[in-house]
Amino acid sequence: MAMMNRSQYLASLDDGRRIFAEGQEVKDLASHPQFATAIKLVGDGYEAHYRPGEDASGPYFKIPRSRQELKEILEDLLTWDMVTVTTSQGLLALLTAAARIRPARPEYARRIEEYFEYCRAKDLRCVQAITDAKGDRRLPPSKQHDPDVYTRIIERRQDGIVVRGAKLHISSAAVSHELIVMPTKNMKEGEEDYAVACAIPVNAPGVRIVNTSYAPRERIEDFPVSSQHNMPEGFVILDDVFVPNERVFLAGEIEHSATFAHALGLWERLGGTAHLAEFGDQLVGLAQLVAEANGTDRIHHIREKIAEMIIYATLVRAGLEAAIANAEPSPEGWYFPSELYTNAAKHYAAAEYSRMVRHLHDIGGGAIVTAPSVRDLENEEVGPFIRKYMATKEDIDGEYRTRLFHAVRDFTADAYGGWQLVTMIQSGGGLYAQRLVARKHYDMERAKDLARKLAGLA
Amino acid sequence: MAMMNRSQYLASLDDGRRIFAEGQEVKDLASHPQFATAIKLVGDGYEAHYRPGEDASGPYFKIPRSRQELKEILEDLLTWDMVTVTTSQGLLALLTAAARIRPARPEYARRIEEYFEYCRAKDLRCVQAITDAKGDRRLPPSKQHDPDVYTRIIERRQDGIVVRGAKLHISSAAVSHELIVMPTKNMKEGEEDYAVACAIPVNAPGVRIVNTSYAPRERIEDFPVSSQHNMPEGFVILDDVFVPNERVFLAGEIEHSATFAHALGLWERLGGTAHLAEFGDQLVGLAQLVAEANGTDRIHHIREKIAEMIIYATLVRAGLEAAIANAEPSPEGWYFPSELYTNAAKHYAAAEYSRMVRHLHDIGGGAIVTAPSVRDLENEEVGPFIRKYMATKEDIDGEYRTRLFHAVRDFTADAYGGWQLVTMIQSGGGLYAQRLVARKHYDMERAKDLARKLAGLA
Amino acid sequence: MAMMNRSQYLASLDDGRRIFAEGQEVKDLASHPQFATAIKLVGDGYEAHYRPGEDASGPYFKIPRSRQELKEILEDLLTWDMVTVTTSQGLLALLTAAARIRPARPEYARRIEEYFEYCRAKDLRCVQAITDAKGDRRLPPSKQHDPDVYTRIIERRQDGIVVRGAKLHISSAAVSHELIVMPTKNMKEGEEDYAVACAIPVNAPGVRIVNTSYAPRERIEDFPVSSQHNMPEGFVILDDVFVPNERVFLAGEIEHSATFAHALGLWERLGGTAHLAEFGDQLVGLAQLVAEANGTDRIHHIREKIAEMIIYATLVRAGLEAAIANAEPSPEGWYFPSELYTNAAKHYAAAEYSRMVRHLHDIGGGAIVTAPSVRDLENEEVGPFIRKYMATKEDIDGEYRTRLFHAVRDFTADAYGGWQLVTMIQSGGGLYAQRLVARKHYDMERAKDLARKLAGLA
Amino acid sequence: MAMMNRSQYLASLDDGRRIFAEGQEVKDLASHPQFATAIKLVGDGYEAHYRPGEDASGPYFKIPRSRQELKEILEDLLTWDMVTVTTSQGLLALLTAAARIRPARPEYARRIEEYFEYCRAKDLRCVQAITDAKGDRRLPPSKQHDPDVYTRIIERRQDGIVVRGAKLHISSAAVSHELIVMPTKNMKEGEEDYAVACAIPVNAPGVRIVNTSYAPRERIEDFPVSSQHNMPEGFVILDDVFVPNERVFLAGEIEHSATFAHALGLWERLGGTAHLAEFGDQLVGLAQLVAEANGTDRIHHIREKIAEMIIYATLVRAGLEAAIANAEPSPEGWYFPSELYTNAAKHYAAAEYSRMVRHLHDIGGGAIVTAPSVRDLENEEVGPFIRKYMATKEDIDGEYRTRLFHAVRDFTADAYGGWQLVTMIQSGGGLYAQRLVARKHYDMERAKDLARKLAGLA
Repeated sequence: MAMMNRSQYLASLDDGRRIFAEGQEVKDLASHPQFATAIKLVGDGYEAHYRPGEDASGPYFKIPRSRQELKEILEDLLTWDMVTVTTSQGLLALLTAAARIRPARPEYARRIEEYFEYCRAKDLRCVQAITDAKGDRRLPPSKQHDPDVYTRIIERRQDGIVVRGAKLHISSAAVSHELIVMPTKNMKEGEEDYAVACAIPVNAPGVRIVNTSYAPRERIEDFPVSSQHNMPEGFVILDDVFVPNERVFLAGEIEHSATFAHALGLWERLGGTAHLAEFGDQLVGLAQLVAEANGTDRIHHIREKIAEMIIYATLVRAGLEAAIANAEPSPEGWYFPSELYTNAAKHYAAAEYSRMVRHLHDIGGGAIVTAPSVRDLENEEVGPFIRKYMATKEDIDGEYRTRLFHAVRDFTADAYGGWQLVTMIQSGGGLYAQRLVARKHYDMERAKDLARKLAGLA
Repeated sequence: MAMMNRSQYLASLDDGRRIFAEGQEVKDLASHPQFATAIKLVGDGYEAHYRPGEDASGPYFKIPRSRQELKEILEDLLTWDMVTVTTSQGLLALLTAAARIRPARPEYARRIEEYFEYCRAKDLRCVQAITDAKGDRRLPPSKQHDPDVYTRIIERRQDGIVVRGAKLHISSAAVSHELIVMPTKNMKEGEEDYAVACAIPVNAPGVRIVNTSYAPRERIEDFPVSSQHNMPEGFVILDDVFVPNERVFLAGEIEHSATFAHALGLWERLGGTAHLAEFGDQLVGLAQLVAEANGTDRIHHIREKIAEMIIYATLVRAGLEAAIANAEPSPEGWYFPSELYTNAAKHYAAAEYSRMVRHLHDIGGGAIVTAPSVRDLENEEVGPFIRKYMATKEDIDGEYRTRLFHAVRDFTADAYGGWQLVTMIQSGGGLYAQRLVARKHYDMERAKDLARKLAGLA
Repeated sequence: MAMMNRSQYLASLDDGRRIFAEGQEVKDLASHPQFATAIKLVGDGYEAHYRPGEDASGPYFKIPRSRQELKEILEDLLTWDMVTVTTSQGLLALLTAAARIRPARPEYARRIEEYFEYCRAKDLRCVQAITDAKGDRRLPPSKQHDPDVYTRIIERRQDGIVVRGAKLHISSAAVSHELIVMPTKNMKEGEEDYAVACAIPVNAPGVRIVNTSYAPRERIEDFPVSSQHNMPEGFVILDDVFVPNERVFLAGEIEHSATFAHALGLWERLGGTAHLAEFGDQLVGLAQLVAEANGTDRIHHIREKIAEMIIYATLVRAGLEAAIANAEPSPEGWYFPSELYTNAAKHYAAAEYSRMVRHLHDIGGGAIVTAPSVRDLENEEVGPFIRKYMATKEDIDGEYRTRLFHAVRDFTADAYGGWQLVTMIQSGGGLYAQRLVARKHYDMERAKDLARKLAGLA
Repeated sequence: MAMMNRSQYLASLDDGRRIFAEGQEVKDLASHPQFATAIKLVGDGYEAHYRPGEDASGPYFKIPRSRQELKEILEDLLTWDMVTVTTSQGLLALLTAAARIRPARPEYARRIEEYFEYCRAKDLRCVQAITDAKGDRRLPPSKQHDPDVYTRIIERRQDGIVVRGAKLHISSAAVSHELIVMPTKNMKEGEEDYAVACAIPVNAPGVRIVNTSYAPRERIEDFPVSSQHNMPEGFVILDDVFVPNERVFLAGEIEHSATFAHALGLWERLGGTAHLAEFGDQLVGLAQLVAEANGTDRIHHIREKIAEMIIYATLVRAGLEAAIANAEPSPEGWYFPSELYTNAAKHYAAAEYSRMVRHLHDIGGGAIVTAPSVRDLENEEVGPFIRKYMATKEDIDGEYRTRLFHAVRDFTADAYGGWQLVTMIQSGGGLYAQRLVARKHYDMERAKDLARKLAGLA
């Protein structure tokens, strides 16, 4: 019942978990190229937050009780590693669901709060495991050729349930402790076994995680961003995993099946918007640095593009501020962000992200992808020529500019950049989902009244 | 020293002002088709706000002393007629300029505050008169073929100055009391006579206002929006107008010449954004009503377009909220909105407005411009056919639907709609101006630091 | 059996037709403000094309027999009045349908060809009458509350049929001779009475046309575009109109009901694209003229916007050229444009039109909507001031510039401009229809093969 | 004087060329991971085109003498490896320049034609080497801190010239035979030494090429696109290279310095547009395949996005067709594509490319970046689970779908995808260059005449 430091975290991973990558089981995560950075980053987080004492707990276990506290959490979040972010978001999503189902299902709400306490007390890291394999998207869970393509309860015992299925796109699962399992969508009558939410330890018997990664594995020095910020993407197999009753948060009550996904969507989109606001500023910064390095920062069309990027970054941040300023308390006094503003901001941020990247590429020039390797800079024969010809003016030397291009490439036009392009769009559901939720929470009656009044038809 | 009611306002217009329209001087404003509505609207405003007593004054004379008060003003503003809006914005802009020039020019700041008190005490209506004729845009004021194309001081007397020039796009000037004259841009050395800010009564000798209007003058019943909401656009001629010292706020101090335009830009863009947020909701409401009337509100691509419109309206409002939430106090304790958020929001709102109108037109269909006149509905022979064929379902009768189309046309695809398309873009300066100001107020150093850190070049 | 000149055309309108506008029946079209211009324009067309002789016929009756001839027709078309355009397009659409249904229904194909000859021989003007009232869009014709909201056969006689319904958005109907009636959509089993195509003279008993118009009716001199180019929009009532067998082109054969609409869609979108290419160039020209008049044509962001407009106009024209270059002959040797290119080009042209208008408004400035009336220029007292202050440089006098702004306003930001915004989107069906048809005619199998090959999955 | 086959090509590379990568000189290109694929692809091209006989030559040496021949070359080009494409484009660009400078400089034109014959006769592969290092973009070549940042003549001898500088972004240089060197921009008086065009063999003394690459070097099976299609990007150092007179095409005649860049721009943009039209179709195909695999191909918003992608691909192709249909012959009878249409099409294609990629990512889902490795499919323990859960319906097995996601990732969201995002924008100059050239070749006088006529100001 205390916080962990780095070494305790490292020790905690040696818990029998079954991790796979590139066709092999991985026994030593900490030294494997797909996991080493992730583990270092999470370890850094433990080390940075560690405080001694039985009552100590990390700020990622804070429940916002005012708009101001919500704002502070969102500011902190940008400094956390991804699995610390998901710990906060996943648990807040669970608590949001708890608040919403408490009147009907007080027992589940109680279990969620106890589970929250458990994670906090042991300083665990959690990831939300929501997306099912889904099979043929045209068919509901109960009509699928293979009944397991949506995670389901295959056995109900006195002391718990047994679940089977797969959860996809589970970032950081391999380096965390807990899987917060939720139904991927609303379930209908006859689909009770698919209405399952629960918590499963990563090392539970039957759990296997297959990982993919955008982590660079060679020419590390040409990847200044991704070599520092990468997380494995987990394909989580639940091969008949037992879950004790205390960790079961939904088991057949279809009327609450969508509650979890909606709650998670809200927090994921909020976090995504916070990150996109930051990415927006980073894109502006890169564009300005590269324009200055090229000597083009006073050229009109370059300035105009940077101004558009500034407006983008600012509007995303405005959306975030409005989501917080319009947050509303639950009966428990917990503050949840505005669904409307969160979804509108996330939609805009994600939809326009690729255009901002295009601006950066238009500003930067071809050297983003053709700049020689950092190793070439060190070659005795050609290194001096690269330094000579990549330099532009007195204070911009060839190495600095070369490295800047690598950063732009790595951040926006390589494996990590591609991963971002996709996940910016997909995190918290694709663009369509955000349009759907924004529409649902918009005050359409007020808009129609305004229109009727305008038309003289009130 | 008291508030005016409608009849006092009407009487106040009989002050010798020189108003022209369509080639003729207009003697009776209140009955002229270009002015009648405007005067009715302003009169309505006087009547609604009127309270007796010497100390009474309208809420449009309130100086915001907290973010909350600033928010309240912006909410109120949407219920005001245009000249009440410009009274508030013009005076707040003057006060913003006063706050900024006070350290260097306390006398001007004092005069502005006294002028504010004067307007408040007499319950006057003001318009800002800023845009000069400008002549050849490639040349500065002092190089123009005709030296008068920028408003200038042509004589400096002991008791005041004499100004000459023209001020363009001065909405509502003909139905207001005071012209708040400001330099249209930054002036440079040698252009001292062009650095002139002052207040001029509409009826001052030498002032003539030529008006144009989008007010419908026939088939009034087909124009449910513009017949209720129109204001004359004034071309204000300053034919050697004397201004006494007490009403002179700048007279040659070129270093402050841009201060007024910047201050006005801020308030105009803020007000513009507030209106665009409202227009956004009105467009959504019209789109939903017309889709419901057509029976297309469940069709997927219609729903998607409406969702995009919702996101637009919501983001504009988010920008407004962020501009208020990030407002900062002047030394006087007056709260001015965030330049960065105001400009970013106004840019987005104005730039995307025409696309939202396109969505509405795509949703509505051709009847927006081809629906028969309301008078045809009343024709004995063809009226019943129009009712029959314009009806769509039980609760949507032909007349309602016809009128709805007229509202959409009038609001977005006729004289008033065209006026809006242009003024949405141009109010507070074109899109370029907003990009410029947004860039100026953006924290570029922070963005560059973020980028350097990301690139490993910190 | 000869061509008509203007006076013959004027005489031909005195045929007992029933025309309504603004709640009144119109007896003298040629002098009515809603019709005078239209009749003048059509008369100009007759006069310009007139050649004597029994065999003479206008170029609008030409059937393209090669890609080159198709190209020539499209070039000619831009010089024609609207009803001459619709004559060509409507008849080509009928012939396209004839070619497609000939194998199954040779009799109808024969009647269409004879009808074409009849129109050619008598030099008649035709309009296509396709859009039904449609009632509740969620319901098919046979399920509507009022069975007449889709035009239908209410009686089948030995010598012909009787039709009832209304056709909407029928531009120029009141000043033409023939209505080419087609089913608005595909009909299904049980909807045989709605599968009706035929030709109806405008003066047939039972036809009544209610008109609306964007024609300016005052301050004509401020409307340089719309005062020269306006056509009444007809709401055509078919109040139990008898059609003799020879003019019936479909009467119950539901399997061919969509053929007519598709054929018309093709020609309307082609013509629409041709016009949009021209409008694109006109917008570029206006933007350049207004920038030159303002002295802003060398400013970077202005130049950039004009360049974007140039690219737009050029791409629309490219789409048109590709539609012609990929035209295919029917068995009759008639050349029909490519469905794929026509629809792609029309979609792009219509979807981006409003953004091009926005560019023009951004470039032009507020004077687009606030410039004083041309009549004010002639006022003795204020006219000289307006000339003085609207002038910008030596070769740009105030009157020229004022008139230029009126043209921009009239073309893009007033009644005519609004009519264009809507009809650009709606002509030939909304944007959705063009996406649908483009998808249908795209070679998806080839695209999938390319993708499979790329993915190594071929 | 004959064509080469693969083995002759391989032998030809053993010519003493100096190639570097990742800090090392590369001695055996054919086995190095950065070059092996490129050499295989070029070798495939030699093998496919090889015909015996002294007169035989490849189609990439064809000069188009009609619009039809130009069209055929563009169709062929899509089947060629990159260095065969650049051979054709580089030489056609040289010939275009020859046609343009012949009147003034017949000797250079003669040398270019002889050089063309030389390359054809020996079946050589050429790359265009145009982009200089450029130093500080604010300064002209003659004002740079380091005079070598623009390639220049440092010595003029009786028998030739000596050049120094660097050429950047030279795709495929390391695997080709000839560098076609051109000035990167217009040169002005005093910059005569920078006005240099010539041909330099890759193995000429003083040439060194440093390479970077998006070629995958591990998990090859997860990279179905880039493992098959990659080319090294060369940073070409010209360390005082001697060029004999016969290979000098410009040496100081500044008035012709821009001619080469313009000529190359035209052909590069044409080729780029041809590729983008093909990429457009590939993106459509991938989107459709992935939607079918997911079972989402009937969902409305998915269909709409694919329709937008279809319209994009079709419009790009329309631009290409118009560029060919409007090609004009030189005095030599060589057909050069339309500058206007080429630039407009390339601008649209490049500007919208990233949005099409966004659509694909939105349609595909997160598995684009999270799908397990192909190797995991083969793991005994987890492979069956991946197959099970990645499958969706009867005809879509898990391996097929996994591989499809890898193709989408590799093509659009990984190193190769990033390289494409950047090079699509940058090839033939950034978007700005295309706006510039489009504007230059647009018939602005005609547009202004149209506008004047419309405005009644003709």
